Amino acid sequence: MPDHKLQVIPIGGLGEFGMNSMAFRYGDDIIVVDAGMMFPESELLGVDIVTPDFTYLEQHAGMVRGLVLTHGHEDHIGAVPFLLSQLNVPVYGTDFTLALVERRLEEHELLDETNLNTVKPGDRIVLGPFEIEFIHVTHSIVSAVALAITTPLGVIIHTGDFKVDPTPTDNELFDLHTLAAYGKRGVLLLLSDSTNVDRPGYTESERAVRPRFEDLFTRSARRLIISCFSSSIHRLQLILDLADEYGRKVAFLGRSILNVTEIAHSLGLLSIPDSILVRPQEIMQMTPGKVAVVVSGTQGEPMSALSRVAVDNHKHLYIQPGDTVVLSSRIIPGNEKAIYRMMNHIARRGADLVYGSMRPPVHVSGHASEEELKLILNLVRPKYFIPIHGEYRQLSRHAHLAQHLRFAGLEESFVLETGETLEIDRLGARRSEKITVGRVCIDSGSLDDVVEDIIIRDRRHLSEDGFVLPIIAINKHTGKSEGLPEMVSRGFVAGDNAAILQEARGVVARTLETSTAEERGDWGVMQEKIRTDLKRFLNKQTQRRPLIMPVILEV
Amino acid sequence: MPDHKLQVIPIGGLGEFGMNSMAFRYGDDIIVVDAGMMFPESELLGVDIVTPDFTYLEQHAGMVRGLVLTHGHEDHIGAVPFLLSQLNVPVYGTDFTLALVERRLEEHELLDETNLNTVKPGDRIVLGPFEIEFIHVTHSIVSAVALAITTPLGVIIHTGDFKVDPTPTDNELFDLHTLAAYGKRGVLLLLSDSTNVDRPGYTESERAVRPRFEDLFTRSARRLIISCFSSSIHRLQLILDLADEYGRKVAFLGRSILNVTEIAHSLGLLSIPDSILVRPQEIMQMTPGKVAVVVSGTQGEPMSALSRVAVDNHKHLYIQPGDTVVLSSRIIPGNEKAIYRMMNHIARRGADLVYGSMRPPVHVSGHASEEELKLILNLVRPKYFIPIHGEYRQLSRHAHLAQHLRFAGLEESFVLETGETLEIDRLGARRSEKITVGRVCIDSGSLDDVVEDIIIRDRRHLSEDGFVLPIIAINKHTGKSEGLPEMVSRGFVAGDNAAILQEARGVVARTLETSTAEERGDWGVMQEKIRTDLKRFLNKQTQRRPLIMPVILEV
Repeated sequence: MPDHKLQVIPIGGLGEFGMNSMAFRYGDDIIVVDAGMMFPESELLGVDIVTPDFTYLEQHAGMVRGLVLTHGHEDHIGAVPFLLSQLNVPVYGTDFTLALVERRLEEHELLDETNLNTVKPGDRIVLGPFEIEFIHVTHSIVSAVALAITTPLGVIIHTGDFKVDPTPTDNELFDLHTLAAYGKRGVLLLLSDSTNVDRPGYTESERAVRPRFEDLFTRSARRLIISCFSSSIHRLQLILDLADEYGRKVAFLGRSILNVTEIAHSLGLLSIPDSILVRPQEIMQMTPGKVAVVVSGTQGEPMSALSRVAVDNHKHLYIQPGDTVVLSSRIIPGNEKAIYRMMNHIARRGADLVYGSMRPPVHVSGHASEEELKLILNLVRPKYFIPIHGEYRQLSRHAHLAQHLRFAGLEESFVLETGETLEIDRLGARRSEKITVGRVCIDSGSLDDVVEDIIIRDRRHLSEDGFVLPIIAINKHTGKSEGLPEMVSRGFVAGDNAAILQEARGVVARTLETSTAEERGDWGVMQEKIRTDLKRFLNKQTQRRPLIMPVILEV
Repeated sequence: MPDHKLQVIPIGGLGEFGMNSMAFRYGDDIIVVDAGMMFPESELLGVDIVTPDFTYLEQHAGMVRGLVLTHGHEDHIGAVPFLLSQLNVPVYGTDFTLALVERRLEEHELLDETNLNTVKPGDRIVLGPFEIEFIHVTHSIVSAVALAITTPLGVIIHTGDFKVDPTPTDNELFDLHTLAAYGKRGVLLLLSDSTNVDRPGYTESERAVRPRFEDLFTRSARRLIISCFSSSIHRLQLILDLADEYGRKVAFLGRSILNVTEIAHSLGLLSIPDSILVRPQEIMQMTPGKVAVVVSGTQGEPMSALSRVAVDNHKHLYIQPGDTVVLSSRIIPGNEKAIYRMMNHIARRGADLVYGSMRPPVHVSGHASEEELKLILNLVRPKYFIPIHGEYRQLSRHAHLAQHLRFAGLEESFVLETGETLEIDRLGARRSEKITVGRVCIDSGSLDDVVEDIIIRDRRHLSEDGFVLPIIAINKHTGKSEGLPEMVSRGFVAGDNAAILQEARGVVARTLETSTAEERGDWGVMQEKIRTDLKRFLNKQTQRRPLIMPVILEV
């Protein structure tokens, strides 16, 4: 009879897009599944990386038995160095996943002190009261797994990210049999990927892009420039195979694509035909019809290889009329404008642009659509269900889906957001305490450069209406202000020295004059009075609300 | 024999999204087609409206014979008040288009002085050497027209925005016959809408949404809350008809939807079943299954009715579990995050959310897809072709499409961007001079509040790294600085008074000390020296580049 309750503790990725991380606790033992990052929203001005707040795990550091990774996408492993720098625990994952993690740990000089453990689908590991089996799933990255976590209270299935691809290009099928066997024996709790829950039908197989790429290799008379996510090993394999077949050499452009292909090749996950690769510096010397270039930067990231190629700012490649540029990827929400801008630059240089929705597709998603999600729910038929990996609207839709299926045994679906925990014991499952969560914003990729919320709030404020600084010089002997206050402003009104600012000086002077001696003696009070009066004046005159920050100088 | 050349002068909307406006000049006569606005990109921080720069038209004010409008969407009429305030010329458009323009002119107190002329499809007007025939087209707004402009050098066809809907809900078919007749007689130049050129196939008929809405009215047990573009009169008619059929009352929520429905009703374009309307204040009193609410704000605009409803911040409507919320609209690029945020709020309140792609559709586009664009090209078979209304990638794809059709007579396609003119004479067509164009950013909807580029640049800079202001008090008698410089900062580093700013004070003090007396006498030089030294210091310490603005106070 189990003595303790089981707690499900979402650290990140529930009710938000990215930075996926989930903890499970039984008694005094905790395991963590994934530690991903989030690409910052454009509203997080000047921030480069966002990771979950791992405070809960730090507070329970002595209980954490290990970090288990489902696959190597950034939103699942991007925060691993940040977590490990706070909490050095053993890490478990497949070969490819750990190879990608190693690269990140090296960058942060954490590799030597980290305990990395490679697992294969079918392997089982034991971490305290948890026994974890790794189950192969199909996804847009190779070596992705789901987890079957056996606890004293029952089995938890965590799908990771997946689709149910009936014809994966590497012929490694989703291990539905193992999932079905768990379902048959009885599953306590299912956590399943909600990313594409709002897409009806089935996600197309990775194999569906082959006809489109065959057509591109057949029809393109000149250079073929293809951009895809660097971790899309299946897609890279297809490009290499077709290049071989159609007599083109291949060049890789961009640091991430070079790194990842090297890793995949060394692990035997990417087979590179003999002498097909050429170096970037050879691209422009070759007959244009005899080369294909694979470029990183599908999201229009300003410093990526493709963004630089698009504006003739890359050492080894520029676009010429008649070249074909293929964007074999989706648009991550928030990146639309940057991507369209890049595409316009490319079109302006006379290239044929291939992108977007078309039959046959030039890109397929790696996430399961509605019908696949139903299949998994029906196979696993859990007692409790928690949708994971998605914003609230997606989680709640996924929960509805489960309720509508009405398979035998489902007692309840829980829509949890990050920080909202669930506890399960012999009597059932129920919502429990909230834990401290949030996001940690990092400026430049180092571990230290954490940006506080207040800074981001200030930046947003500044970005909308600029600032106005009244500067008052106070004579330290007399306690009186010297001359008219100065008024410094940027980003506020045209000219920034316009009549309005002249008037504003008068407003501040009046505030000073009409204040009592007592008020004038308290700088805090004076600053607040000046701010209030000036705010009212500027808002009335301009309908705008610049950041106002009175400065009092003692001279 | 024509004496003059014909000039095609794109004022806005070519190579950019929105603010469509095109001028045609023959000798000393100019006509303008459309004067639209653009919704600002999120990068234009704090800007509300963007209009084209009408400098060219102002410079040739005496030549402008009139403004001709194709339809009433904001990206075609939104800048009319701004153009007319600079240039009072007669305006021509259909009844509904002019009614929408009137409302905008009233807001800007320009209505009395404006000469508005209502036209119908089939009408012809003469403006100097231009004879203009209005041709009915199908689009997501009612009363949309294309223009056939007869000039001494030949006929120009300007499609406006359109799709070729074979089953429009009002049975007013696209007047393909007139277009075909022009095509048969010979067309000099076609300008055609490129918005959806990257969508394969045909755009679905407006009628295609009916089955989805029937299903929604059948299945929804409680309140049905529907949001669509307020100008979608066809869609509003469908909702009113179904509400009548299924026994629900209808309430309109939001200023724009109230205005537009009133206009459409008064023009006989929207038929409102007897006593079906209820006032907003009655919504929450009615049986939830007996009311449908039409709400404006599909794009997640912060102050729109739906955004406020989504966070329980609307006087007359809040969402209850089991309500159905329908987003019957597309996502305008750039609005993704705001819309998703709004949807999450709605889902969190327990509503069923209906949105996105599904069969049958809950929304269809108003713009022609690839096959419809081919149809128009084949019907009109112009000598010259200019794709309009789109970013560069769309214009160039549309030009490619025309080249690949190879219909008889096409001599050349020109991809022009705003400001790049084309001239046509007896010898042919060729690219010509560039004119002054650009965008004018307006802060709050008034005619005066123009935001200069420098302000936007400052705001962007501030939004990324905040600001640092060194403040130096100089004794006006001695010319020497008094005490250590002050350092004021926001949005830059945590605490804003951290050690780094203390050190920065020393840096500025050193700059002052090491300057010659001559330098110290020139404030401009000193400001620049301080800025340079401080920039180097802060960048080295933090890898960030705040806006630095030295202030020198004479005390």
